[in-house]
Amino acid sequence: MLHTDGHARRSVLSTPNGDVDTPTFMPVGTQGSVKTLTPDEVASTGAQIVLGNTYHLMLRPGAELIDAHGKLHGFSKWPRVMLTDSGGFQAFSLNDRVKASEDGFVFRSHLDGTKYHLSPEEAVRVQGLIGADIQMQLDVCAPGESPRSVVEAAVAQTTRWAKRALAAPRPQGQALFGIVQGACFPDLRRAHAAELGALDFDGLALGGFSVGEPIPRMYETLSEVAHSLDAERPRYLMGVGTPQDLLVAIGQGVDMFDCVLPTRNARNGQALTRNGRVVIKQARYRDDRLPIDPECTCACCAGGYSRAYLRHLYIARELLVLRLFSLHNLHFYGELVRGARDAISAGRYESFARTARDRMAGQDN
Amino acid sequence: MLHTDGHARRSVLSTPNGDVDTPTFMPVGTQGSVKTLTPDEVASTGAQIVLGNTYHLMLRPGAELIDAHGKLHGFSKWPRVMLTDSGGFQAFSLNDRVKASEDGFVFRSHLDGTKYHLSPEEAVRVQGLIGADIQMQLDVCAPGESPRSVVEAAVAQTTRWAKRALAAPRPQGQALFGIVQGACFPDLRRAHAAELGALDFDGLALGGFSVGEPIPRMYETLSEVAHSLDAERPRYLMGVGTPQDLLVAIGQGVDMFDCVLPTRNARNGQALTRNGRVVIKQARYRDDRLPIDPECTCACCAGGYSRAYLRHLYIARELLVLRLFSLHNLHFYGELVRGARDAISAGRYESFARTARDRMAGQDN
Repeated sequence: MLHTDGHARRSVLSTPNGDVDTPTFMPVGTQGSVKTLTPDEVASTGAQIVLGNTYHLMLRPGAELIDAHGKLHGFSKWPRVMLTDSGGFQAFSLNDRVKASEDGFVFRSHLDGTKYHLSPEEAVRVQGLIGADIQMQLDVCAPGESPRSVVEAAVAQTTRWAKRALAAPRPQGQALFGIVQGACFPDLRRAHAAELGALDFDGLALGGFSVGEPIPRMYETLSEVAHSLDAERPRYLMGVGTPQDLLVAIGQGVDMFDCVLPTRNARNGQALTRNGRVVIKQARYRDDRLPIDPECTCACCAGGYSRAYLRHLYIARELLVLRLFSLHNLHFYGELVRGARDAISAGRYESFARTARDRMAGQDN
Repeated sequence: MLHTDGHARRSVLSTPNGDVDTPTFMPVGTQGSVKTLTPDEVASTGAQIVLGNTYHLMLRPGAELIDAHGKLHGFSKWPRVMLTDSGGFQAFSLNDRVKASEDGFVFRSHLDGTKYHLSPEEAVRVQGLIGADIQMQLDVCAPGESPRSVVEAAVAQTTRWAKRALAAPRPQGQALFGIVQGACFPDLRRAHAAELGALDFDGLALGGFSVGEPIPRMYETLSEVAHSLDAERPRYLMGVGTPQDLLVAIGQGVDMFDCVLPTRNARNGQALTRNGRVVIKQARYRDDRLPIDPECTCACCAGGYSRAYLRHLYIARELLVLRLFSLHNLHFYGELVRGARDAISAGRYESFARTARDRMAGQDN
């Protein structure tokens, strides 16, 4: 740990493919591509690590092919750090015919119906082939609003799978993170954090957030749970979230985030800025000569593209605007976590986060 | 004229926004964007001039808005040379309710039904607002396979409009090209070339090719007509064509080309190479580690993206591949005309063109 400031932490995560300054945000490269962008462009946003989706990649083009093509680093030409999820979440959420058992998930590909069996050991093997610097264990995420008994069962199953994942052979140098479940039951979360913290994981994640629970409830649970995860290891909040979510969670001691929001919003014509969201199709931007954010140094804003031009491209369905917005939004996230790291080092994280959240208050309007 | 080699010519076209080495290929930026690419990327393919479509731009976002935003150069951030067509071709081809008269075309927008009147003078005014370095006159393109009398009428109408276009006020520094019609009647073409050549145009174009006539017939007509256009002025073959078309037409003395083929084929997953076409969805590329063209220096090929990865992106509908193919295909065209210029200077154009066409013989397979 380089610095702490309250619960907030600044550190460096070292991997065979380089270091990652934390807190960090991981752009999502679902199918081996951070949508619309080249690896160089992704790196230009400040990203030092990207996330690949095991489920999507094992189905297409297949983990064996990726392995044979220099793993995902060589295949997709991303030379830096890569984390993969376990595939369990998508196997569950994208398939209506998934069967869960003590041994894992059996499911059919949503693409062509091919049958797959994803056990805790198979998830490690597949992520090994894909070549993740950081693997995630197979876990069970109880559906949002599940009763306590269902959440307890998911937690217990996740712990049994955690031990099996750790016992499975894994390529040298690949880290493995455990996933703490427990929904919005702080006592279950804390107990699970202690249980997984006793195992030989290289980091600990919080899974099962942002799955439909009210945001204040997630924040409340985070405030009771995040700092209870072992302080010596990286803490990763999976699938979260908005810029506000990041600011809150960093303040609670979280180090790593991933979310499709910046790239998905870009494709929906929404640019995120320090002063809130720009929904570019709005008529108010028709004649607007300003860049998306005059303070921003991304290639879209510094390149001088006006809101009027970007609106024209969006309305005319020109793909260029999706690239420029993806770049801008990821740059915004990159700057957000960079600002957070600097503020933690300076011992002023709380005021940094408050100021940033106040400025973004127009967001979602 | 710097060099001639048979009918082939190498020259430089000077405009207020820079020089263009000819023969040249103009990427098409229909709606103020060469599809999927940034201006820097377009320039990186060797392009020194792009084409904008007056019809599309006058409908959306509107010529007045473009004018107020620094003309199309300022609006779209393309700092180099820009040519616009007159809008007449699209007004005719995209609208089933267009009315043609001596005064021009009256049509309704295919977007929202707004009524427009495009006269020879209005076409000059609108292109002036858009800020073209090179304007095209409003012309009449007879439908493919029209009888001689229809073609004769189109030629006569185009001449009357040519004189009106030249008489219309036009911003200082903007060039105006006339358009020679006459379908595949060489005598009509030659007569029209002489007629327009007597007028004060800055260049002469051949319109009405590649509108459905058999390719050998286009080549035959070109061979009888192209070199009869005034040798002192640039010669532009509109809307043409394939790499083979360019090689043939350059040999007949044509200097300028535009075509959507390289960018449209890119979006259909087709990469053009010296050795023919790569249709990337084909199963043969599933495990192919080679770049699209190992000899190519474009960002796609030199970036090391394998055919297997590009195929994966295409099948997974990832937009990145459309960018990479657009870049590659325009780079291929850029290299083709660069090679032609060098060959003309060296006095070996005929053998250059023959070799290039032979290598591409696999194309369209």
